[in-house]
Amino acid sequence: MPFTLPQYHAPDFAERRFADAPDARIAFCDKDGVVPEYYHSTSIYPEYFKIDGTWRLAEESRMDCAVILREDGRLDVVEMRGVRAGDRVILGRSENAEEGIFLHANGFAEEGEKNGDQFLFRQGRSRETAFSRDYDNLYSLLRHEKAKGHVVWVMGPAFAFDHDSRRAMQLLVEGGFVNGLLAGNALATHDLEGAYLRTALGQDIYTQKSRPNGHYNHLDTINAVRRSGSIPQFIEDHDISDGIVYALVRRNIPFVLTSSIRDDGPLPEVIHSAYDGQAAMRNIIRRATTVICLATQLHTIATGNMTPSFRVVEGEVRPLYIYSIDISEFATNKLTDRGSLSAIAMVTNVQDFIVNVAKGVGVL
Amino acid sequence: MPFTLPQYHAPDFAERRFADAPDARIAFCDKDGVVPEYYHSTSIYPEYFKIDGTWRLAEESRMDCAVILREDGRLDVVEMRGVRAGDRVILGRSENAEEGIFLHANGFAEEGEKNGDQFLFRQGRSRETAFSRDYDNLYSLLRHEKAKGHVVWVMGPAFAFDHDSRRAMQLLVEGGFVNGLLAGNALATHDLEGAYLRTALGQDIYTQKSRPNGHYNHLDTINAVRRSGSIPQFIEDHDISDGIVYALVRRNIPFVLTSSIRDDGPLPEVIHSAYDGQAAMRNIIRRATTVICLATQLHTIATGNMTPSFRVVEGEVRPLYIYSIDISEFATNKLTDRGSLSAIAMVTNVQDFIVNVAKGVGVL
Amino acid sequence: MPFTLPQYHAPDFAERRFADAPDARIAFCDKDGVVPEYYHSTSIYPEYFKIDGTWRLAEESRMDCAVILREDGRLDVVEMRGVRAGDRVILGRSENAEEGIFLHANGFAEEGEKNGDQFLFRQGRSRETAFSRDYDNLYSLLRHEKAKGHVVWVMGPAFAFDHDSRRAMQLLVEGGFVNGLLAGNALATHDLEGAYLRTALGQDIYTQKSRPNGHYNHLDTINAVRRSGSIPQFIEDHDISDGIVYALVRRNIPFVLTSSIRDDGPLPEVIHSAYDGQAAMRNIIRRATTVICLATQLHTIATGNMTPSFRVVEGEVRPLYIYSIDISEFATNKLTDRGSLSAIAMVTNVQDFIVNVAKGVGVL
Amino acid sequence: MPFTLPQYHAPDFAERRFADAPDARIAFCDKDGVVPEYYHSTSIYPEYFKIDGTWRLAEESRMDCAVILREDGRLDVVEMRGVRAGDRVILGRSENAEEGIFLHANGFAEEGEKNGDQFLFRQGRSRETAFSRDYDNLYSLLRHEKAKGHVVWVMGPAFAFDHDSRRAMQLLVEGGFVNGLLAGNALATHDLEGAYLRTALGQDIYTQKSRPNGHYNHLDTINAVRRSGSIPQFIEDHDISDGIVYALVRRNIPFVLTSSIRDDGPLPEVIHSAYDGQAAMRNIIRRATTVICLATQLHTIATGNMTPSFRVVEGEVRPLYIYSIDISEFATNKLTDRGSLSAIAMVTNVQDFIVNVAKGVGVL
Repeated sequence: MPFTLPQYHAPDFAERRFADAPDARIAFCDKDGVVPEYYHSTSIYPEYFKIDGTWRLAEESRMDCAVILREDGRLDVVEMRGVRAGDRVILGRSENAEEGIFLHANGFAEEGEKNGDQFLFRQGRSRETAFSRDYDNLYSLLRHEKAKGHVVWVMGPAFAFDHDSRRAMQLLVEGGFVNGLLAGNALATHDLEGAYLRTALGQDIYTQKSRPNGHYNHLDTINAVRRSGSIPQFIEDHDISDGIVYALVRRNIPFVLTSSIRDDGPLPEVIHSAYDGQAAMRNIIRRATTVICLATQLHTIATGNMTPSFRVVEGEVRPLYIYSIDISEFATNKLTDRGSLSAIAMVTNVQDFIVNVAKGVGVL
Repeated sequence: MPFTLPQYHAPDFAERRFADAPDARIAFCDKDGVVPEYYHSTSIYPEYFKIDGTWRLAEESRMDCAVILREDGRLDVVEMRGVRAGDRVILGRSENAEEGIFLHANGFAEEGEKNGDQFLFRQGRSRETAFSRDYDNLYSLLRHEKAKGHVVWVMGPAFAFDHDSRRAMQLLVEGGFVNGLLAGNALATHDLEGAYLRTALGQDIYTQKSRPNGHYNHLDTINAVRRSGSIPQFIEDHDISDGIVYALVRRNIPFVLTSSIRDDGPLPEVIHSAYDGQAAMRNIIRRATTVICLATQLHTIATGNMTPSFRVVEGEVRPLYIYSIDISEFATNKLTDRGSLSAIAMVTNVQDFIVNVAKGVGVL
Repeated sequence: MPFTLPQYHAPDFAERRFADAPDARIAFCDKDGVVPEYYHSTSIYPEYFKIDGTWRLAEESRMDCAVILREDGRLDVVEMRGVRAGDRVILGRSENAEEGIFLHANGFAEEGEKNGDQFLFRQGRSRETAFSRDYDNLYSLLRHEKAKGHVVWVMGPAFAFDHDSRRAMQLLVEGGFVNGLLAGNALATHDLEGAYLRTALGQDIYTQKSRPNGHYNHLDTINAVRRSGSIPQFIEDHDISDGIVYALVRRNIPFVLTSSIRDDGPLPEVIHSAYDGQAAMRNIIRRATTVICLATQLHTIATGNMTPSFRVVEGEVRPLYIYSIDISEFATNKLTDRGSLSAIAMVTNVQDFIVNVAKGVGVL
Repeated sequence: MPFTLPQYHAPDFAERRFADAPDARIAFCDKDGVVPEYYHSTSIYPEYFKIDGTWRLAEESRMDCAVILREDGRLDVVEMRGVRAGDRVILGRSENAEEGIFLHANGFAEEGEKNGDQFLFRQGRSRETAFSRDYDNLYSLLRHEKAKGHVVWVMGPAFAFDHDSRRAMQLLVEGGFVNGLLAGNALATHDLEGAYLRTALGQDIYTQKSRPNGHYNHLDTINAVRRSGSIPQFIEDHDISDGIVYALVRRNIPFVLTSSIRDDGPLPEVIHSAYDGQAAMRNIIRRATTVICLATQLHTIATGNMTPSFRVVEGEVRPLYIYSIDISEFATNKLTDRGSLSAIAMVTNVQDFIVNVAKGVGVL
């Protein structure tokens, strides 16, 4: 089944309500990191702003941000802390053209689809939802994206504990299905421990037998990487030849490791500041056309916050698909509650999920 | 990897403590369905009773039952309600030979294994446990059991909602990996609805689209089976040609459908009394060497209650393996808390599990 | 805050669509326990049927049943298995008067409330929902129902394990807040074990310390009740003087104990057939104006299936409130997914819930 | 019931194995943030090191750290990243005196208690555990700690959504039961939004009704605090007079707000670097005698990592109690899996928990 991207239907700005609408109001920011009163905050949807009589799309959006009109005419979507004194910030809190702002929530809907949409939204997804169709759709999507898109994976710490799933993910990287990865210190640590000492948290990565003094293994791994000074140098120093991080480094695929207060170490590449970390993540997400979040509530919500429902590729608006795979409905619902049709939840153990995906796209 | 059954090490009854032990005491039951004071209640482990100076194993055991010495010398393990006035019931509440009763908990342990055992038990299993090894072990076990054992499957109601997993289970039946099935009215209803109307609870079984008035579909299916008078007759009347129940009927594999207060209908085969249902289930379990419980807390606990940790096959004691697969640790722990090494929990969505198993044993 | 029942707004049958509608069609049932093709199946909402030109309400409804027009003109809502050859069954599968059937889903809504309603429905409820208001509403409701209503409680097996919550429930019974109770063999067994031996599953009910050979305690309790022949006789024989069941028996409050395949024993009062059990439960529910389900997926779903969203009391239609309290969103959602505003989910440990309620209505 | 601290039994260093043991080996660190090979890593238990022939306790310990012998003779327990070139690090990976290192795991056990300990450990805790005794113990403990201890609370983001629980926590602060608080940006934001705009995430904090454009409320709150420049200044500027943060500021109780990649804003007090955040948290924990973690997996694990099982107060070793309250067993088990008897898990909704505690200690 070849994958077909849904068509985007831009608003018809010739309509009276758009033609009659005023320009969006603008206020100057008077203090770094503080936005003006009544500033407009963005959503996950495409939003248009009337500037000098013309409706224009803010192309690289994300939710809960201010929109800044730059000198060169660009509309920048900026987090509150990134606003600087003197920036021109768009004002307005209605979204149906009355204040020169239009939020276009149904741009990808076909005729008569709106009800279906709402029904799906209501329905929720649980362990008892049937996922066969979702798997098949995802395999098609990934093959399409390998050729024409940009797939970013977001992974929780426990992912690398299991032999088969760690290998499946490595094969997906090597097979060209991974264009970027977002994770934390723990995922990289466990994956490297597996490569360096054949254990995860001291247990043999396949037999699950505990090694004597195995609780030292993750600390010894971190220490060795810190001694090498970087992950690539550690890989060279110790002839590492398998695992997820190894495959990423070998293929020059960008990955961002953000910090958390749970961390040991950390590894040298981990970004200490949460907000520098957000910026690095968003730089990866700016190119993403599909995002797949695996078993991490922290990173999934963080990524969901900065991921819009659309992406502009070569001037065309297309959906940005975001998947959340977790064994807990509570976790997957955190993402899909935002209501975009492009957010898809699957409720299962990510170990099985990733093995299925690797088989489904033919790398395993 | 071929599967090897662990060796059973019977107690050495030449030891002093066994030789010196008294015969087990016996009391007559004085009222139907009521056991004598201080009666001995069984466990999941092999238990030996000293009768007329000889230590004898109660071969078909299960937990929480009375042991009745029959006229012909058999030791019958009987639920409280099955005891009849005049039955000779074994007394005693110590299990280390002092009262002529010996519980043999470590019959399958190798030298020096006891510590490992305890560690495993303590450790618990969760969504973050690595399951690659367990899957590989299970594939080996199932191939072994196909030739030499007897595999009973226990299934929750939601299992048949998903296209791929319903088909995987059908193929496992047709591939000879299923010797019996325990389920409820709902599993059979949803599976038959899928065969009859291509839906489950009114949604297309593959596309998940809701059919108009689809909420009638499961009721119409039940009604049609009731009109036919039996499931086999319904299969014939309506040319049913796929699904789990279809495959069972076609191959004459026994299945037991027990009732619950949640049921619609019910289907004609469903056993109305919970206790007649337990008896029918235990008749299936009496031959089981491996039991696999999928996403049903009710049936898993019920089955676990009547499933010992061993089976006597042609005079040899072997382990009886019992798996519990569920997306909730709370549910899987209910079974594995009983502490037998032969109980294995896997935490995932059973849809993925069954597809994995069908692929792992080569029927998909 | 005194509680006010919402006003019911009956349909205006003078409207053209009602006046012009045909009488509902009727077919004779030709086989016991089998309904005619195209039979009408009920919902949780009030439904009106046009009989001989007059629109009439089926007063004692529940979902997924047939509607039988009795000789005396009554409209009986009957489970499929209760239909008998010769019964006159209403046909029709549209619900907006076209076939003489009208489902009135919004009878309790005030002007302009419909949107709010939908929003609430969408929103779902989780561990992070704020429940202060729900608690306050519930306290008011229970005080109202004590005077004018009929409160049925539905309880899972684990409820009686905890000292404080067992006592809170006893005080609610003694305080007049309980008009009926639905549970299984296990709830009654654990509660009686607590009264008889001061343990639950062998652990001291307050200190949680395990008693020697405590795993015999629940079996010895069941055995003693079976010897007495009934729960009331056991209470007399053993001078039982505390607990939930004790309070119910003492006050002649009806309780129904249904069976399940997990049961030990069972206790003498337990109804063996699941379908006789359903009938007994529905007889209790026929009078209920509020139903509170605590930590039991099995009994909650079963009760939810037979509980409509309204009750006719002295000719007036009022809401029938149904609460589901469980620590798992998956369980509470099973009930509230049906979409009635009168179904309220609260996500917490029922031990805390019941202590809160006992304090909130002033009995603790 | 007055609370009694268990007695600590120090090892008897006159025993032969201690007297004969060698001094602990020491190596110099050769690179900042990198520990020597075979360095000793600490646990949650009291550990003694033989230095110049004398066994000495590392007083302020935590797990997974290096032990540095300072010039002045102090034994400092330091995270890997805090080690500096030239530091003298203790080596050794056995813990029973062989290498001059002794881990004292059972210092608080009474005679014959060891089995009980293990049993509890094994048993796990779930939604079905009876918690009455734990509540009573906790009330006693908190009264004791108010007079003689130091209680640190660790709170997840959702805590402030609920009217009653937010008020209960405020009263606990004002009642003297809170000596420090660890949380993230979100907890403080929601609590301040409640004080500033009477909503949490835009819903009325009591009625739960959504306010028009309420999704702006948390952003407007953050923006207002950022404009004020600090939380205390915001409280003054806007006459804030209720809530958890308000009570802490008013009473000069230290709180640490650490960052995460999920954050909006952040508030000015939030510490950007995860590792600076860890240091600030540990500075609060260094004085803690009881730690109570509420509904936050991230902060609970982070705090658990840096919290030992004991505290030295005025030269005496006493237990450091750590509670984890969460609605998910998976979350509470993360903490209690470490096996210390001083770690207590309770499985419930923290809203109910905190209201219970406030009533139990008499402030509500």
